[in-house]
Amino acid sequence: MVVEQVKGVKVAGQDISVSSTSGSKPVSKDSIINLDHGDPTMFESFWRTMGGQGTVVIPGWQTMSYFSDVTNVCWFLEPDFALQIRRLHNLVGNAVADDRHIIVGTGSTQLFQAALYALSPSDATEPMSVVSAVPYYSSYSAVTDYLRSGLFKWAGDASAFTGDSYIEIICSPNNPDGYIKHPVLNSKKGKMVHDLAYYWPQYTAITGPADNDIMLFTVSKSTGHAGTRLGWALVKDREVAKRMTKFIELNTIGVSKDSQVRAAQILKVVSDGYELPVTDPAARLFDYGRRILGYRWERLREVAKTTGMFSLPEYESDHCNFIGQQTSANPAFAWLKCERDGIEDCENYLKSYKILTRSGKHFGVEAKYVRVSMLDRDETFDLFIERLSSLK
Amino acid sequence: MVVEQVKGVKVAGQDISVSSTSGSKPVSKDSIINLDHGDPTMFESFWRTMGGQGTVVIPGWQTMSYFSDVTNVCWFLEPDFALQIRRLHNLVGNAVADDRHIIVGTGSTQLFQAALYALSPSDATEPMSVVSAVPYYSSYSAVTDYLRSGLFKWAGDASAFTGDSYIEIICSPNNPDGYIKHPVLNSKKGKMVHDLAYYWPQYTAITGPADNDIMLFTVSKSTGHAGTRLGWALVKDREVAKRMTKFIELNTIGVSKDSQVRAAQILKVVSDGYELPVTDPAARLFDYGRRILGYRWERLREVAKTTGMFSLPEYESDHCNFIGQQTSANPAFAWLKCERDGIEDCENYLKSYKILTRSGKHFGVEAKYVRVSMLDRDETFDLFIERLSSLK
Repeated sequence: MVVEQVKGVKVAGQDISVSSTSGSKPVSKDSIINLDHGDPTMFESFWRTMGGQGTVVIPGWQTMSYFSDVTNVCWFLEPDFALQIRRLHNLVGNAVADDRHIIVGTGSTQLFQAALYALSPSDATEPMSVVSAVPYYSSYSAVTDYLRSGLFKWAGDASAFTGDSYIEIICSPNNPDGYIKHPVLNSKKGKMVHDLAYYWPQYTAITGPADNDIMLFTVSKSTGHAGTRLGWALVKDREVAKRMTKFIELNTIGVSKDSQVRAAQILKVVSDGYELPVTDPAARLFDYGRRILGYRWERLREVAKTTGMFSLPEYESDHCNFIGQQTSANPAFAWLKCERDGIEDCENYLKSYKILTRSGKHFGVEAKYVRVSMLDRDETFDLFIERLSSLK
Repeated sequence: MVVEQVKGVKVAGQDISVSSTSGSKPVSKDSIINLDHGDPTMFESFWRTMGGQGTVVIPGWQTMSYFSDVTNVCWFLEPDFALQIRRLHNLVGNAVADDRHIIVGTGSTQLFQAALYALSPSDATEPMSVVSAVPYYSSYSAVTDYLRSGLFKWAGDASAFTGDSYIEIICSPNNPDGYIKHPVLNSKKGKMVHDLAYYWPQYTAITGPADNDIMLFTVSKSTGHAGTRLGWALVKDREVAKRMTKFIELNTIGVSKDSQVRAAQILKVVSDGYELPVTDPAARLFDYGRRILGYRWERLREVAKTTGMFSLPEYESDHCNFIGQQTSANPAFAWLKCERDGIEDCENYLKSYKILTRSGKHFGVEAKYVRVSMLDRDETFDLFIERLSSLK
């Protein structure tokens, strides 16, 4: 019966499976709880509180041209958006953004592909190997391989890789397990891409400004605006920045100006919340995020302890320069390991109780693990905790 | 001296070359006139006239989720946008949109790639051949080949193609030459993609609703909003629609909701201009477009005649069902052929007079031809006509 209701458009080996419950709230105690995706709807309530401040107004005649700023390497980047990106990084202290090229993308997924394109020689006889240490974000492999490119190919776990020419993806804090990650390979010929989507104060301690060659960020996880499909890369090298821009030219001839105009306003409100003198503490996005996520993690750890059915990663606390105190991590995903004897496939087990999660096998590890989104709306998370507590 | 000023980021064989003058107005009589791109800034003045009607307001908490409508094959398509697309096609009569799947894309460029992905078998040993009759849109080859995909590859002029397994792109009215085009190949195993970006009443007579398997449209050319990066495909077959959706999932996890919300409003205003009873004739986009373009084409033909330096295509007039009368075509691009003896490279010749155009060689034909955008702002077009008239 459950199976009938859980109709997904699952495609083997690919990342996203959309089901009839994706993005919606559970309508009853008995509803399917969909925590498969990292849909950041938790942040909706913050933006409702902010009222008109987050609103954007775009007249019909604005931003009609393909071009935003032809003096910039990334000619389709709206200057106001670039300004607010640099302002926010300077405020938070999570990345060096001054004197770096900013490349805007249709989400960080497009920027990930732009980085692979930029770092792979166009005249190579063999495709470049793309690797990441397990457990790695399930999307990396699918997105690298879906077009069977001659430029790059997925080569799996970085720790098991033996060559000296590669692109290593470092996701830190890591999706799915929330740990701070460092490169595991160390060849002079190797290239690196740092996916820093979750390096924001609501999720982890900001221990210093990251200063890597290519760093990826996205509004999805920083402010919760997944639907705007907007990310940015901070890039040191001008030639790499030009190649990434070229990829986005060829892929989509630039990036929605409407999303950029909106995101500029959204980032401005976030920075204003900390920088303007008369600000209400409720107007502070990262404080809001930490409070909600901290409470959710507490409740989840409590259920883990009382039921003994599953375990969770432990994170060491660290000094966060942004909040000025010691803090522990509250990752955007919970990385659950089923501890009950006889349960080898945790995703299927939870599915039988109408809880949709993503199996460890998509992340390069055992099916005893599942990834669970911590970013859904309150109603969904509450029901998740209630249902988990009731499992026998 | 001219060369110094005309610094482009030209990449051989690729479509877009951004120069310091892209998207901007000429500042003096002596300025560079950039008509290389099809930047549709001509429509800005229409949308200014429409004032607040074209304005969109998006509150901070709206459309934050990845998901728009999970009951739809294209789960990231905003229902309001879909509604306005169908309404506009029904009004104009240029395509069958009811009972067709609508796939939204980040411009029709992304949808073009989605169509190639959908129509190419994922298990084939050889990549599928992609062809189009010369002169073909310069972007098709670059966009097909930039990732060196194992699924599809550019195979050039459809008329010269000999196999029976292929994807033929039919652009009608054609970019660059403005003619109505039909498939040139006819194999049962062949697939077709119809690029109908210019099949709108400002450019050509609407002789009936197109009803092809895959039809591509874009707001860039229909309403002039290139910066929103939004296109749509009308697709007959459900499985093809699902594969196209999957491509966009993997490529960008959906399409900007902000752009969709804005475009829904823009399309609504266009339809309202014809369907609401009290409408000002100045509020009719297609009439505005036809009037401006008709006048521009008259002036360009006049210069061709008086100078004898170049020729232009002639178009037969046809009955337009939408305007209810006989009309001639006013294409978005002029396809100039240099007729002066000794000039083999028309792009270079015009560049020496600071007029930037796109050479015929990018479209698979001789360098005697160039493509010139007819969609720029009045100031730019006026200066273009003035400078052309003065050439010796």
